[in-house]
Parts: sequence; C-alpha cells; structure tokens
Amino acid sequence: MSTKPTKIAIIGSGTIGLSFAALHLTKNPSCKVMILDSRPDLQEYVSQNLPGYLIDTDQISCIERLSFARDVEEAVREADIVQEQGPEDVNFKTGIWPEIEKHAPADALFWSSTSGIPASEQSQNMVDRSRLVVCHPYNPPLVMPLLEIVRSPETSDEIVERTLKYWRALGRTPVVVKKECVGFVANRLAFALLREASSLVSQGIVDVHDLDDIVCSSMGPRWAVAGPFKAYHAGGGEGGLKSFMDKIGGTVQKCWDASDEDVRRGNINVGEAWQEDICKQASEAYGVADTAERDRKTRKVLEAVQS
Amino acid sequence: MSTKPTKIAIIGSGTIGLSFAALHLTKNPSCKVMILDSRPDLQEYVSQNLPGYLIDTDQISCIERLSFARDVEEAVREADIVQEQGPEDVNFKTGIWPEIEKHAPADALFWSSTSGIPASEQSQNMVDRSRLVVCHPYNPPLVMPLLEIVRSPETSDEIVERTLKYWRALGRTPVVVKKECVGFVANRLAFALLREASSLVSQGIVDVHDLDDIVCSSMGPRWAVAGPFKAYHAGGGEGGLKSFMDKIGGTVQKCWDASDEDVRRGNINVGEAWQEDICKQASEAYGVADTAERDRKTRKVLEAVQS
Repeated sequence: MSTKPTKIAIIGSGTIGLSFAALHLTKNPSCKVMILDSRPDLQEYVSQNLPGYLIDTDQISCIERLSFARDVEEAVREADIVQEQGPEDVNFKTGIWPEIEKHAPADALFWSSTSGIPASEQSQNMVDRSRLVVCHPYNPPLVMPLLEIVRSPETSDEIVERTLKYWRALGRTPVVVKKECVGFVANRLAFALLREASSLVSQGIVDVHDLDDIVCSSMGPRWAVAGPFKAYHAGGGEGGLKSFMDKIGGTVQKCWDASDEDVRRGNINVGEAWQEDICKQASEAYGVADTAERDRKTRKVLEAVQS
Repeated sequence: MSTKPTKIAIIGSGTIGLSFAALHLTKNPSCKVMILDSRPDLQEYVSQNLPGYLIDTDQISCIERLSFARDVEEAVREADIVQEQGPEDVNFKTGIWPEIEKHAPADALFWSSTSGIPASEQSQNMVDRSRLVVCHPYNPPLVMPLLEIVRSPETSDEIVERTLKYWRALGRTPVVVKKECVGFVANRLAFALLREASSLVSQGIVDVHDLDDIVCSSMGPRWAVAGPFKAYHAGGGEGGLKSFMDKIGGTVQKCWDASDEDVRRGNINVGEAWQEDICKQASEAYGVADTAERDRKTRKVLEAVQS
C-alpha cells in the first residue's frame, strides 16, 4: 500500500458491507471508505446502523472518513480497493465488474465477498480477468479474523500477494484457497459438522442445546487454539498424526461408516422431515439471539489465543 | 455427595487416568484418590508424571491425598466413585466390573472413560447393570470441560443425576447422551469435520496448515462461544435457524452434495492413499506438538468464554 490514505469503495452495504466498512475504518485509521448502494434511504440507514459496529474506537474520525457515491463511476474512480458484496446473483456480478474495471484506476484491487460465486464466473465479461479475487469473510468480518482468498485460475499472483499484505496489515488471517470449489473451505467444513449434528439430534441421541454444549466444551475451544490436523497431530504424541491414525484409525472409520448410514437412513437433506423439529428446538432453546454478547465473548476468545 | 471426603478409585493410570486423578485432586480439594494399575513401576511413574498436571495448585496437598492399591478389592472397598480407564477391550471391561461390583460399597458410582465400548456391553456380567454409566472425556480431561455421560438402557436416572451433580460441582460440563451410538457424540462431530478437511486437502484446495488456520480463525472461536445450532440460529436473525435454512439451505445442500461426491471420488477412508500425504504435511508443519502451550491457551480461551 502507498503511504497515502487507502481509498476503499464498498459496493453493497448490507450487514457484510457495513461490517467491512467498520473493519477498514477502525483497523486502518487513515483509510477513506466510500459506499455505493441502491437503497433510497442509504445515508439514514448507515448513520443508524454503522455506530453499532464502531466499538472501542474514535467514532467521529470513522464517520468523517466515510462518504457515499451516486454511481459506480464515482465510487471507484479513485479507489485503491473495490470490495463488492452485492446480491448473490451471477448476472449482477458479471454485469458490475466490467463497469468497475472501466472506471477504476489500473492498479485498484478488486475483491468480491461472495460466499459461492467464484471469481472465474464473476470475471467472465472483464477485459483483465486476472484482477479479480474472492475475499470471503466469516460473519461478521469485523470480529472474525478469517478471509478466504479464493483465486480463480486467472487471478494473478501479484493480486493475491497485495491482497494478503493488506489484510495482514490489518491483523486479519487471510488464507489462500488454491482452487475454486463449491462453498469454499470454511463453510464446507462447518456444514459437514452441521449435517452430523443434525443427524445425531434427529435420532434423539442429544437435543439441540446439549449438542451445542458438547461443542462449546470440547472441539470449539480446542479448535480456537489448534485446528483439527494440529490437534490430532498432538493427540498422536511423538509420532504425530500418523501415530494417531495408526492407533485410532479403526474408530475413526467406524464413526464415518455409522455417520454415512445414519445420514442416509435419516435423509439428512435440506427441507426433509428432520429440519422442522431442529429449528423448533433452536427457537425454544435460544429465542432471539444476542449477537452483541456473542461478539464480545468472541473478541475475548481471540485475545486469549493471541496471548 | 456426603460431607465426608469423596473417595475415588482410579482404575488404570495412563494419560487419561492421570489427568482425571489430577482433576479430582485439584478441583475437589478434600477428596482422596487411590490408583490401581498393573504397571510394575506405578509409583515411580506417577510421581514423575503427575506433578506436570498439578498446575496452580497445592501440589503437596494433592500428593498427600493420593494412594495406591494392590488389587481391585483394596482400590474400591471404600470408594464413593470408581472410575475406569483400562484397556479398550471388551473382555477387560466385562471382566472387571463384576469384581468391582462385588467389593465396592452398594452406593458407589461406577464410571467408564471408554471412548467406544458402551455401558450396555461392559455391564453384561454385572448383577446390577443400572449402576454403570460412561463418562467419556475430551482429552485432556483436566483441561477440557466436557464429559459425555452416555447412559445405557439399564442405567438408572438416580445414577445419572448423582453423576451430573458431582461433575457440575467441579465446574465441568457433563452432557447426557440419551442413547448409546457408535463413537458417542463429540468424536462423531469432530471426525465428520476431519473427513471433510482431509477431502479438501487431498484435492489440493488448501494444505494442512492453511486448513488449520481457517478453522482457528473462524468456526473454532465461534464454536467456543456458541455451538453450531446456536451460531446458525443467530445467523438467521429474528427468524432464527428456520430463516437461516430458508435463506441458505440451498447453499448448504450444494455443499453436502459436493462433499459426498468428493469423499467418494477421493476414497477418503482410513488407510487409503490420501492419508500418507496429510500425515507428512502435518509432521512437516508441526514437528513434535507442544501440548503445554496448547493447554495454557485453551484454559485462557475457556476463561474468556466464562467472563
């Protein structure tokens, strides 16, 4: 990044866009953020909702560095970074990138926050497809350190490097996903566990609240400190993951086989019979979720891991 | 529990047994622990290894309250709790419980730390099968709060209630698993994610270290604070988990379908081709694991969640 203030265009200011705006404004204290969004009450909406994201920071400085654009050209023409989180609609994405490309500086970074439309699809109408890369956050981006940097076969190494450098300077954890795949990595992992959780609950083995308690008191804190491979590598002692698999592999395979059979028998697919009861249990157990409390504790957990 | 010091017999003093001994001695400051183990160097082994578990506590008091038994009768005859973590071998378990039952007081609690042999199998030679319940820890039990209390169809409600009461008094998180199932719950969940992780790494989408970084910077800290159902319930806003599934369900199903296909195509089963490279990557990334550092951080994470 240059020593001049970074200029960031935020295209689409839903909850993800606002959280990213707040992240840039708070962690990059000289940057300027310009928001483009088609909602008619944009300025009112932002001034009502953004302050909730600006915790432990100089709110006035943040808001002074924020502005609004009337159109794509105004939003991106001086931008160092264009970060898009518009509708999850291929036509929207393929339509807007050529327009952004036309008006933005030649060295501006182009990032999409999409959770599922890969850069290779989004970039199909661009002149220089090497400029686009997906930066997929884990919600909310202001709190969670992860950014999945999902490159397309066209994305250039230089774009990836500059993208990593920016996020690392902000204290985030950008991780390169080397090949585009359905759902990228974090959601694929989390949804795999969600399916198994749903299968076990649907069999009456545990209820929703107890299952959550199990995760919070075991693999949650474990994986906050060491991911699954590192954790099982430690579990294998001096012989590492190989010893772990040699010793426990039989049990692992029995669990996988049982899971496959149970998922098949219980028809654990979206919209099937199991889903209604689990949603009902979640609603009864938790009512309306308090994300402020969750985010406060998550920040403390992340600080504890760093300490 | 009575107001007299609780007397606990630890049958089998491998790493799980020692960690449990340390847990009782440190969190239940008046209890007495008697260890039975067939290893010939038992006392030397315990005196060398136990102090490493006795952190931030009065080590001398702990060691004064520890003794060793010569046989099952001596170990259990005055025990309030008999906690077994011998070999994971059905014959060992079905052989020892009738002997324990014969010598222990009529109201002693019988707990097995097994990770996979359910109480209904272990208890088959007992006179009163209602007395046995599985208390499966998440390793190491001294650090991780979870205990899966896996009841058999025979286990009595009273035994379950007294078991929960003891663990809660020690500040742990005992969770009742209502039906015996392969692998119980925590391992089933963790292994489901491990399989997906192995599948994604084996495809070259991410490497082992990057996958761990993804988990540590996203679902790890999230699930330390709120389990998967609670987390997605919050993700659905006011409509909760139902809204989440209505909005994101299509993406979830696409991920599940892709995972099934990838696991099948990559033959992600124990001992197949993928395993060697992943074990090699783990070894290169992590060398010999530092569990002391992991446990220190995990304690801080757990404190952060409580705060």
